[in-house]
Amino acid sequence: MARWEPNARERLVRAAVDLFTEQGYDATTVNEIADRAGLTKTTFFRHFPDKREVLFAGQDLHARLLADAITEAPEPATPLAAVGAALDALAATFTEDRRAFGARLRPVIAGHSELRERAAFKRAGLAQAMADALHGRGVPEPTASLAADLGIRAFHHAFEQWADPTCRQPLTELARHALDELRTAAAALG
Amino acid sequence: MARWEPNARERLVRAAVDLFTEQGYDATTVNEIADRAGLTKTTFFRHFPDKREVLFAGQDLHARLLADAITEAPEPATPLAAVGAALDALAATFTEDRRAFGARLRPVIAGHSELRERAAFKRAGLAQAMADALHGRGVPEPTASLAADLGIRAFHHAFEQWADPTCRQPLTELARHALDELRTAAAALG
Repeated sequence: MARWEPNARERLVRAAVDLFTEQGYDATTVNEIADRAGLTKTTFFRHFPDKREVLFAGQDLHARLLADAITEAPEPATPLAAVGAALDALAATFTEDRRAFGARLRPVIAGHSELRERAAFKRAGLAQAMADALHGRGVPEPTASLAADLGIRAFHHAFEQWADPTCRQPLTELARHALDELRTAAAALG
Repeated sequence: MARWEPNARERLVRAAVDLFTEQGYDATTVNEIADRAGLTKTTFFRHFPDKREVLFAGQDLHARLLADAITEAPEPATPLAAVGAALDALAATFTEDRRAFGARLRPVIAGHSELRERAAFKRAGLAQAMADALHGRGVPEPTASLAADLGIRAFHHAFEQWADPTCRQPLTELARHALDELRTAAAALG
């Protein structure tokens, strides 16, 4: 039976981002990540299939948070009001102590096409989770997918601002503002 | 000096889709693709870095077509009118003889997460090319990115319909219709 390692997952994520920052993504091995985290390679593979997935560990949790918030938004919420509730729920998990970590994660992903590719796939997956939850509220296509896209775009934009070390606003506020701007832009396009 | 191989690129693409369909993506090697196309592995690597990229060979060309059409759309075109012109330009390259090929490509990509991931990245790249061209016309953010997203979503949806063997409509018409629907949905969201 496996030994319980406190915070193994988070330790591995932080070790990976440290090493990717110091020596590059390509040059870093799973062994080095496990070593830096003070854990074994076996423990690493209990948590992640490979070094790339370490950076996208939150995807399933984030998808669930977004979808649940949409499902639970009180009637009658417009599609974008439900999406706004979802962004609130997700943004609330990005507490102030995670801002500096976000700032370090950003250049790692931006610096490597394989990671940018994975990040685009993550965004598509989160958008799909929101669209599916909107379908569950009876929102038809293409409205559901479009509202979900606006939500993901708003969150991504807000996160980029929030992860800037000079930023002082909470992520929730930035995401709300970005969604408002997109709502206005959508109305102007139509 | 390399021998000139007529239509090498297209022969490799068709051989790859044949083999991926017959025996699966994972089980297919670059050697087999080259063999099936009646070409050498060296010729393969002159055209593509790996077997995955064979399926996304059109990305740069598509990005240029979309961007050029937006840049050249007559003033005063609204952002979505310019995007509509871009979809016309791209859809016009999908001639009737390519429909059956599209139908075979679709399940190959849908059946493999690595390929779905790459497809999501391609869509993000095409959207970025359109957004950049809209910036060049003076369209501000987030309007430019949003209009580009609507365009890519419309094209993707239209392509899925067009690649259905029972479909008889031209891709241009399907894309125009999809963009109109998205314009209406965007207005309703805003």
